[in-house]
Amino acid sequence: MPSLDVVVKEIADEMRRRTERGEVASYIPELARVDPAAFGIAVIDATGNIAVAGDSETPFSIQSISKVFTLTLALGKVGDRLWRRVGREPSGSSFNSIVQLERECGIPRNPFINAGAIAVTDLILSGHQPREALGEILRFMQFLADDPTITIDKAVAASEQRTGFRNAALANYMKSYGVIENPVEFTLGVYFHHCAIAMTCRQLAMAGRFLVHAGLNPSTGARVVSSERARRINAIMLTCGHYDGSGEFAYRVGLPGKSGVGGGILAIAPERASIAVWSPGLDAAGNSHLGRAALEALTKRMGWSIFGA
Amino acid sequence: MPSLDVVVKEIADEMRRRTERGEVASYIPELARVDPAAFGIAVIDATGNIAVAGDSETPFSIQSISKVFTLTLALGKVGDRLWRRVGREPSGSSFNSIVQLERECGIPRNPFINAGAIAVTDLILSGHQPREALGEILRFMQFLADDPTITIDKAVAASEQRTGFRNAALANYMKSYGVIENPVEFTLGVYFHHCAIAMTCRQLAMAGRFLVHAGLNPSTGARVVSSERARRINAIMLTCGHYDGSGEFAYRVGLPGKSGVGGGILAIAPERASIAVWSPGLDAAGNSHLGRAALEALTKRMGWSIFGA
Amino acid sequence: MPSLDVVVKEIADEMRRRTERGEVASYIPELARVDPAAFGIAVIDATGNIAVAGDSETPFSIQSISKVFTLTLALGKVGDRLWRRVGREPSGSSFNSIVQLERECGIPRNPFINAGAIAVTDLILSGHQPREALGEILRFMQFLADDPTITIDKAVAASEQRTGFRNAALANYMKSYGVIENPVEFTLGVYFHHCAIAMTCRQLAMAGRFLVHAGLNPSTGARVVSSERARRINAIMLTCGHYDGSGEFAYRVGLPGKSGVGGGILAIAPERASIAVWSPGLDAAGNSHLGRAALEALTKRMGWSIFGA
Amino acid sequence: MPSLDVVVKEIADEMRRRTERGEVASYIPELARVDPAAFGIAVIDATGNIAVAGDSETPFSIQSISKVFTLTLALGKVGDRLWRRVGREPSGSSFNSIVQLERECGIPRNPFINAGAIAVTDLILSGHQPREALGEILRFMQFLADDPTITIDKAVAASEQRTGFRNAALANYMKSYGVIENPVEFTLGVYFHHCAIAMTCRQLAMAGRFLVHAGLNPSTGARVVSSERARRINAIMLTCGHYDGSGEFAYRVGLPGKSGVGGGILAIAPERASIAVWSPGLDAAGNSHLGRAALEALTKRMGWSIFGA
Repeated sequence: MPSLDVVVKEIADEMRRRTERGEVASYIPELARVDPAAFGIAVIDATGNIAVAGDSETPFSIQSISKVFTLTLALGKVGDRLWRRVGREPSGSSFNSIVQLERECGIPRNPFINAGAIAVTDLILSGHQPREALGEILRFMQFLADDPTITIDKAVAASEQRTGFRNAALANYMKSYGVIENPVEFTLGVYFHHCAIAMTCRQLAMAGRFLVHAGLNPSTGARVVSSERARRINAIMLTCGHYDGSGEFAYRVGLPGKSGVGGGILAIAPERASIAVWSPGLDAAGNSHLGRAALEALTKRMGWSIFGA
Repeated sequence: MPSLDVVVKEIADEMRRRTERGEVASYIPELARVDPAAFGIAVIDATGNIAVAGDSETPFSIQSISKVFTLTLALGKVGDRLWRRVGREPSGSSFNSIVQLERECGIPRNPFINAGAIAVTDLILSGHQPREALGEILRFMQFLADDPTITIDKAVAASEQRTGFRNAALANYMKSYGVIENPVEFTLGVYFHHCAIAMTCRQLAMAGRFLVHAGLNPSTGARVVSSERARRINAIMLTCGHYDGSGEFAYRVGLPGKSGVGGGILAIAPERASIAVWSPGLDAAGNSHLGRAALEALTKRMGWSIFGA
Repeated sequence: MPSLDVVVKEIADEMRRRTERGEVASYIPELARVDPAAFGIAVIDATGNIAVAGDSETPFSIQSISKVFTLTLALGKVGDRLWRRVGREPSGSSFNSIVQLERECGIPRNPFINAGAIAVTDLILSGHQPREALGEILRFMQFLADDPTITIDKAVAASEQRTGFRNAALANYMKSYGVIENPVEFTLGVYFHHCAIAMTCRQLAMAGRFLVHAGLNPSTGARVVSSERARRINAIMLTCGHYDGSGEFAYRVGLPGKSGVGGGILAIAPERASIAVWSPGLDAAGNSHLGRAALEALTKRMGWSIFGA
Repeated sequence: MPSLDVVVKEIADEMRRRTERGEVASYIPELARVDPAAFGIAVIDATGNIAVAGDSETPFSIQSISKVFTLTLALGKVGDRLWRRVGREPSGSSFNSIVQLERECGIPRNPFINAGAIAVTDLILSGHQPREALGEILRFMQFLADDPTITIDKAVAASEQRTGFRNAALANYMKSYGVIENPVEFTLGVYFHHCAIAMTCRQLAMAGRFLVHAGLNPSTGARVVSSERARRINAIMLTCGHYDGSGEFAYRVGLPGKSGVGGGILAIAPERASIAVWSPGLDAAGNSHLGRAALEALTKRMGWSIFGA
């Protein structure tokens, strides 16, 4: 097997030379300011070795990648009752589509489209103040990444809150069906803020390790979730993690993964590695263009696809 | 690790005791005559050992499972040009939905919904007579299963041809967009006939081995497809193999799989096992109820999920 | 021709005897309290004679009927620029569908579905405080009905504001496309309040006269709108005035009309009569059950259908 | 009131000078050969006077205008049972959309979209040979127009039959729901042929007179349909006669009308006039561009709008 360190460096070099990088997301004004040439990668293998390259220490807005962690947290709180509010099928439509909600009585297709993630946030919020719920989510990220310095980028959160009319439409729509319990502005406030968590590739790869290790945090041996739940979260990442580019990601990369419009992707090679990549340019489906290319190259060279050698 | 033989027997016993078995498909009159209590399973592990239980030697109509093999055959003939005619994203809708076609200019979402499989059949047919194309598909199945006795159930094919108006609607619709090249009745004729191939669980598990072994037929060592193509077919089975129950199958079973309305499911544990199950009762999404339950039990006990230990 | 007075009395008697009355709208709690047995009718013919029967002097919540008047007012303010924000085709879907908005970039199909009426209200609001805009709408109704006592039922407005999540979803959705200019809560506030205007059948029939008389208010001879605009508003009422029951209303009644979930219907027989009916029980499409039945009987006996003798 | 003869000549002159004429339909090869500069008009007033101008004696393919007459014929045969197979609401979508059928269990929205007209043709066919049913439709047209020379353009019918895959999709789809009773190819054969009836503006205006005169054929005094049925057919023409341009036609022209992709429009001014116009260039919704412009000018100058003076 090739050396992980060498492969990671080579891939970062290749990505730096690419000219086609996609488009930086512009619908959240704060996100549009990021350097489009940035590229970072961090890979932590099963033994805990970490290989990094490029802008792996630059914090970026994790955006929808946070949905993996809010799903994990919500399942811990309410268990499989969560699935009364959210489905787990790929949606076949874009991340912010409202059509599917109308067809299916306000129940979002899965927890990784915006509507589903808002419903999950609402479950975490229940019985708490928004500030408390947000604190809990942030502490969970810090715990998983073993790094108490992770913070929320308030400028990004405020930017989303000012412009997030489509998410407000989704939340109000679900509220009309009783799928959202808390006041819409509370749920959206928590949602916009957890999407605005800023992390580096290294921090994000650290946070993903429990999904590699059957639910255990390998730093401490603490169980985060059961092995069955870890497998199931991976399964949802594979089928639903890239909106209507999920099939393409499975086809090309062959790993469970979750992307964010900030240009990050967290990918999990079960029992092998936790991987975070970041490059702000997005493809038409809203997923990091170079990020996916880097992951495709990585799984190919390392033989990490879950679909066979 | 538990003994595969023992596990397979136990699962067959459990399934026999279950009372909730789903509904046998009634829309194809011939299929409605099958014994609803039937259950068969066959598992071939990486070393070639085979474990069977129940009605593993009873032939059943493989129906949509044939789509895995026609996709493989068509990719061999036209390569990645196939993807100009068919997408590879989960559809988020039922197996015979026509709505998606209207939204996307007649291009089916993936090769495993009916419209996509008809488009794939049309590619295999091109330049040939229907009889020749059908012969080629059947011989391919016989070769993969290493069994020249596999045949087409003509009564089932005729039954579908008489009643397959919805498939005729899909084919004509694609024809109006130029996605189908051959006369609609020719393409449909081949399609209905390859869906009517009858196989036993043992034969089907044999035929699936190349997807376990990185594209090689382990009987002969012959390469069926490249290792990359085998991984990619597995990826499409995972994301699209169970219509709008694909997310659920990934979540519960954790293996690439393809179901048919005849009640069969082919599942692939890469590098580990080729698995065929059969039980005619279907769930609401049109997938074998006991089949999926059996696969869920099997992967759990054997630790075969692709999503982690 | 039969005497209008006699016909109106007979119809009121018939309606009183009917047992099938539809269901009172329950989604706005305040509206659910109304007497389900109520029935009122008022008809003002071309010469200004007025015939009334039943509960013609009981105020009811005009709800969506107000959309005819806000459309008229907005056209007076911004002219045909209004049609950049709103279409004028029947929607083929229910009054509060959001699917159509997603397909058509946030532009509502017509000014009489909720989304379209909210967009019209937003145009009236522009450059004003909500209180001013609402005052203008109310004064316009008072002027048309020649009755300064018409008021807004604040309990109904507050009830809608507390529960109008689906309308909030529509407004936020349009805001995300820039179709709504004012703060969503301002626009919705004005919308909920003008829907909560309370009027009697007599007042409503009075207010509709300008659409009978080619745009003139016959009390004063004042021109409300041009004759062409009056015809066009009538045309939109005919094709879009009853949501996905518009075709049925045209088929059975044969007059331009606009219904509200409060159970009222305003119908216009051009050059012949302005008609208001009220009965709170609604049919499946959300239109007054007895109201439509009464109008069907009235146009038949009076020979008032616009589609021929 | 202006002289009808003068107005008709003026309008024809105006239309001849227009440069923007829309696009001739190309999806039926035979139709694409017609002269794009053609324009014809024929108006028969209530007293039977006829005013013609332009290419009023040139036969053109009436296409979907035939649906008005097949609806009339089918209502005569099966009465209101027809409405079990077809709705009467505007569809909010294009003439050949299949989406609506999937949402509503194979029941077409109205008799004037293609699916609905095919279902109506199937009702006329029942119990007959295609040749007989077609003969009956043609004789009905000849009787209404008082002209036995009207024929079917077999080249157009054959052209549609070779290329009408989308209509075949609609018919097969409805067949899968049992909405079509006869063999699909029989029903489509009759449908394609009655759409290929060729008529001049004069003939078409003659054929429409029974809808002006409360169901009576004024030549003979014979009752074609009851006055109620005539009104109702007019109502359906108004709400559904121009596909998703129906609202626009009602708004601009203000008359019940039915268009065909051959560029013809039949419009009815109840109790006043039967009007046929023809110009082959179509707008985006598939309706004659100059045809609608001519009708808009005509109703304005003659004061014929059903929505008021």
